[in-house]
Amino acid sequence: MGEPKQKGDTRVAPGQVRFELLHEDPDTKARRGRLHTPHGPIETPIFMPVGTVGSVKGVGPDDLLTLEAQIILGNTYHLMLRPGEALVGEMGGLHRFISWDRPMLTDSGGFQVFSLSEKRKITEEGAAFQSHLDGSRHLLTPERSIDIQETLGADIIMAFDECPPATSERPYLEQSLARTTRWLHRCAQAWSRERSSLFGIVQGGLHEDLRKSHAEEVCAVDLPGYALGGYSVGESPEAMHAGVAFSAPLLPRNKPRYLMGVGTPVDLVTCVAAGVDMFDCVLPTRCARNGLLFTSEGKVVIRNAVYAKDPRPVDPTCTCYTCRTFSRAYLRHLFVAGEILAMRLNTLHNLHYFLGLMGQVRRAIAENRYAAFVREFRAQAAAQEAERTRAR
Amino acid sequence: MGEPKQKGDTRVAPGQVRFELLHEDPDTKARRGRLHTPHGPIETPIFMPVGTVGSVKGVGPDDLLTLEAQIILGNTYHLMLRPGEALVGEMGGLHRFISWDRPMLTDSGGFQVFSLSEKRKITEEGAAFQSHLDGSRHLLTPERSIDIQETLGADIIMAFDECPPATSERPYLEQSLARTTRWLHRCAQAWSRERSSLFGIVQGGLHEDLRKSHAEEVCAVDLPGYALGGYSVGESPEAMHAGVAFSAPLLPRNKPRYLMGVGTPVDLVTCVAAGVDMFDCVLPTRCARNGLLFTSEGKVVIRNAVYAKDPRPVDPTCTCYTCRTFSRAYLRHLFVAGEILAMRLNTLHNLHYFLGLMGQVRRAIAENRYAAFVREFRAQAAAQEAERTRAR
Ligand SMILES: [Zn+2]
Ligand SMILES: [Zn+2]
Repeated sequence: MGEPKQKGDTRVAPGQVRFELLHEDPDTKARRGRLHTPHGPIETPIFMPVGTVGSVKGVGPDDLLTLEAQIILGNTYHLMLRPGEALVGEMGGLHRFISWDRPMLTDSGGFQVFSLSEKRKITEEGAAFQSHLDGSRHLLTPERSIDIQETLGADIIMAFDECPPATSERPYLEQSLARTTRWLHRCAQAWSRERSSLFGIVQGGLHEDLRKSHAEEVCAVDLPGYALGGYSVGESPEAMHAGVAFSAPLLPRNKPRYLMGVGTPVDLVTCVAAGVDMFDCVLPTRCARNGLLFTSEGKVVIRNAVYAKDPRPVDPTCTCYTCRTFSRAYLRHLFVAGEILAMRLNTLHNLHYFLGLMGQVRRAIAENRYAAFVREFRAQAAAQEAERTRAR
Repeated sequence: MGEPKQKGDTRVAPGQVRFELLHEDPDTKARRGRLHTPHGPIETPIFMPVGTVGSVKGVGPDDLLTLEAQIILGNTYHLMLRPGEALVGEMGGLHRFISWDRPMLTDSGGFQVFSLSEKRKITEEGAAFQSHLDGSRHLLTPERSIDIQETLGADIIMAFDECPPATSERPYLEQSLARTTRWLHRCAQAWSRERSSLFGIVQGGLHEDLRKSHAEEVCAVDLPGYALGGYSVGESPEAMHAGVAFSAPLLPRNKPRYLMGVGTPVDLVTCVAAGVDMFDCVLPTRCARNGLLFTSEGKVVIRNAVYAKDPRPVDPTCTCYTCRTFSRAYLRHLFVAGEILAMRLNTLHNLHYFLGLMGQVRRAIAENRYAAFVREFRAQAAAQEAERTRAR
């Protein structure tokens, strides 16, 4: 890494993120840690709400502070297309643009290019694609992705990689992994902003030998953190859990481990036991907008007629603003009537649930009882799902 | 009024609203007052945000408390169709259902029957109509409107009236006014809940003689307050201002005067000078959702490209959360990207502007300088509109 360029927001002291391993659970691979960033510390394991186009859909920064969200994500693909990273840079960087003073992470744009854009074409150079918004043509390369992310100025930025379809044939996978490794070297070469820490990404699908060799290649590049990509892309939860249980320990013990795009509450609890420290997923926010609420008693589909006259809060044990203030009957009414407020109240609750769950996870690890915690949580979730299936 | 029925929420002591006339401006007909309600006092003149179907679109009760909204509206037509007044009643009344502890007012449903529903037919009995939601058939009568409103349990309820089209011929108007008077007597007869104060409504379009005779008929019924209906239904602002200047003084001096469905900032400032105490309008909330923001410097169409890189707040003099926290550039980005947060932030600002304007109005009246305030406000607004027209 060369001299830091003057990009993005410059309010706090420079410095890469630094991972402090506080405690390891004796019976699982779960870790309690603290990730120091230019915008303050993050207690891990942590769930990171996704702020795709510069807002966590449905809530404001004030709500996120109330929820005690420690870090949020921005999506490079969306932001480069609209409003454009140059504009965000001119406005002082992403933190200042969206008024979020705490840590942020941006992805590389690769995943969205492959899942959202049209007429994409991958070459050694990078990925050519057309915007899903207006069909305009773009080329995203490792160098360009890093440049965009440094301009946005998040505390953590991600290497540009290919996330091949889960159904890919093994020869394509091998080719793709080798290219992702070459891209990683180009990313590391392009990386120049100390206050945006670059994380490498290990791919390899569900093939243990490929995961192992790719982890070795990726971790050979000394970086402030590492991620697992290519999970939760269509495989069964059991296959994903087994894959992560194999892959997470391949990453350095003294660096943060980030499992990208995962997942359900059971996924989070299970993969923490494999040694994962960081998660992100659109699940709580997207489900909230669709009226699916996560509770200590299982999932609540708020539009169901059974809630029409239900005076209870969504989750009687929940302390979020929504549960402290409103009945299921009112939330159902708002949702059925299509009121904007439904989006915010549902999102507040679901994020509170996910963030609260991670708080429970951290306490269980600190108290050396994580194995029991995982067992009980999974048993309860399975019982709740069985109950839901019976009720149908 | 007979014995109070047990309807709606019963948390506070019973009692009709009572108007305290604190001060009269020496040079205009403007009044500074205080309306005591079962849910606390309202400082008048006041603007009331509209919560059509049980939420002020775009914001939550927490936001409304922050905004210091003193009273909000609910719409009987919408609530009777969905979720139905019986359900709201079962849930403890509208205050408890929507978690709003401060004063509320519901309209009679008449206006929406005439403007929203299909195949409506007016008879002496009432108005038969089909729901705009599902085509279901309903009959709204004076007795039914009062019964619904008492079940909802707002602090102020409105008489069921007809608001004839502005283009109505005089013979139709005369017929309609006579019927509205007969309906008022039926409303007063049906009214039984002391803690929901019934207001009568004066109609008559822009005909001064009809307004005068109808005001006499309506005010002959002793009620806690009176309203002017049938303004801002298509006539020019000048015609409306002249009409209100004539009609408002026809209402009793010692009772609150409510101008229904009005209006723009200039309308509010102008009609306060005619002696109006209460206003409601969807303008600030609806405009916010369409990206039109009211500021001390005139209107801001936030989607305009000129704001793309504008780091300033929407209104540099505004102290709302939106202006304290975000740039025009960010608000434009949120709006163009269709983010839900844009709705909330824009609505917070516009309501803050309208409520703040009424605070300025109250201070100007209290300080005996309302004539100058109106003159300067109108001159400034005219200059800003001229500027906008030139800029196009
Ligand atoms: Zn909750
Ligand atoms: Zn503002």
